[in-house]
Amino acid sequence: MKVGYLGPEGTNSEEAGLLYVKKLKQKAELIPFSTFFDLITAVNRRAVDEAVVPIENSIEGTIGIVTDMLVKEVDLKIKREFVLPIFHYLIAQKGVRLADVTDVISNPPVLDQCRDFLRKNLPKVKLHLAYSSSDAVRQVAVSLGERVIAHGKVKGHVFAAIGTKASAKLFNLNIVASQINAKENQTRFVVLAKTDHPRTGDDKTSIVFSIAKDRPGGLHDVLTEIADKDINLTKIESRPSKKSLGDYYFFADMQGHRSDTDIQIVLNNLKRKTSFVKLLGSYPRGK
Amino acid sequence: MKVGYLGPEGTNSEEAGLLYVKKLKQKAELIPFSTFFDLITAVNRRAVDEAVVPIENSIEGTIGIVTDMLVKEVDLKIKREFVLPIFHYLIAQKGVRLADVTDVISNPPVLDQCRDFLRKNLPKVKLHLAYSSSDAVRQVAVSLGERVIAHGKVKGHVFAAIGTKASAKLFNLNIVASQINAKENQTRFVVLAKTDHPRTGDDKTSIVFSIAKDRPGGLHDVLTEIADKDINLTKIESRPSKKSLGDYYFFADMQGHRSDTDIQIVLNNLKRKTSFVKLLGSYPRGK
Repeated sequence: MKVGYLGPEGTNSEEAGLLYVKKLKQKAELIPFSTFFDLITAVNRRAVDEAVVPIENSIEGTIGIVTDMLVKEVDLKIKREFVLPIFHYLIAQKGVRLADVTDVISNPPVLDQCRDFLRKNLPKVKLHLAYSSSDAVRQVAVSLGERVIAHGKVKGHVFAAIGTKASAKLFNLNIVASQINAKENQTRFVVLAKTDHPRTGDDKTSIVFSIAKDRPGGLHDVLTEIADKDINLTKIESRPSKKSLGDYYFFADMQGHRSDTDIQIVLNNLKRKTSFVKLLGSYPRGK
Repeated sequence: MKVGYLGPEGTNSEEAGLLYVKKLKQKAELIPFSTFFDLITAVNRRAVDEAVVPIENSIEGTIGIVTDMLVKEVDLKIKREFVLPIFHYLIAQKGVRLADVTDVISNPPVLDQCRDFLRKNLPKVKLHLAYSSSDAVRQVAVSLGERVIAHGKVKGHVFAAIGTKASAKLFNLNIVASQINAKENQTRFVVLAKTDHPRTGDDKTSIVFSIAKDRPGGLHDVLTEIADKDINLTKIESRPSKKSLGDYYFFADMQGHRSDTDIQIVLNNLKRKTSFVKLLGSYPRGK
């Protein structure tokens, strides 16, 4: 069995993949992919059996690139969910102390989440952007835009990256400060596969739908369908359709399995009450 | 009268500011601020009378930093809204042709929106990140990370930025390719002030509310209140509260003015049906 994740090594996605594979009853090979597109289409064309992907973060909200692909580009189902706490670490070459750091690099949302720490401990630090925190750590380890001379120092600058504990280990770097993100930060991961999970009795069902743009009040009709069946809505979130202002996809999670009669009736009725509806799968409720 | 906007010059925010000031019946001075925080708090402490800010983009969704401040940090009201079409331009030093470009710099969402153009026309181009598209244009014009030798060329690299038409003019650069964003892209701007707008008869009212995290079904109760009064909901969008997974603020726009009896009743009832509700203001409906 092959399970894909978004690499490189040292990312939170790898940690989520390892956690998932450990719990499987069969042997599974964990395979890194370099983009979400490659990862998700690999499951779609059966190059791997499953993919572990982040779908929602407590600070950033829905991971757009993943949900966009689930809506439009592939026919995959969610078969598992679990939540991973996320911690950020300030990482530098060995011998660098917190007070030495003049420049910090990471991707924009991570820098944002550590702004309080930086303001307090490194008020004069210069911020630099990278595409991912693991790329930032790699840059501090190996190149830093071709400008590193030695030990992460460039013309008197001392660089540190913000990334995961695993990435520090991977690149043989030191952790200068631990868990520097101010707020609770959690990511919900899901396992995508060609089929979802059989009924366990404690399940969730995820759907995505949209409402004709000229009647956002139609959302009320959808929620009434769900409420009328006493189905517990555990999440509802909007995301721009990218078509025009005010046009959204709504992602909803309900308690129950798609094989339950009430959920079947709701799914059927939503075909008439929405301009688009897609079942994303039923799976055991994460703890 | 003083009207603030997010500078520097050459941004879409400046264009929105100019557009707004032109329509005012009194003389107004347009004042650039360097961060949304500075701009919005300037209105709050009456250093300027009004601020023109983007609140929602058709591709990116809600402009989080603006809505977050409106929810928690200031007591300002929306008094106007209008929509601006957004176009992106590929901008380089004079003499540079499209085929010469080896490196493109802009901020991540703009690069994302121009990905189709870049893939087709510059498949081998290297992408670089900047904090804003106007900063990217400035970098191509003046420094490019201290590595520019002449005409945006660094060791055989030819840089172009993606930004606005106005920023190309401002920095005396050339437009290499026009309107390179693939999809329709619009930004809704609002004018913030200490008080909102009197009733005109064709108005909208914006609110933000949250629902206890353990009962997302409570959203149905809120929408029922609105639907029962035959009030037309023109928008509903969620945004993570950043407190924990599954905890959202909902931004809703309704047709009508807060001085209308039905809207007053709804606002009053929502105090009991939500864990938090705030009126963001009533204003004439944008065309």
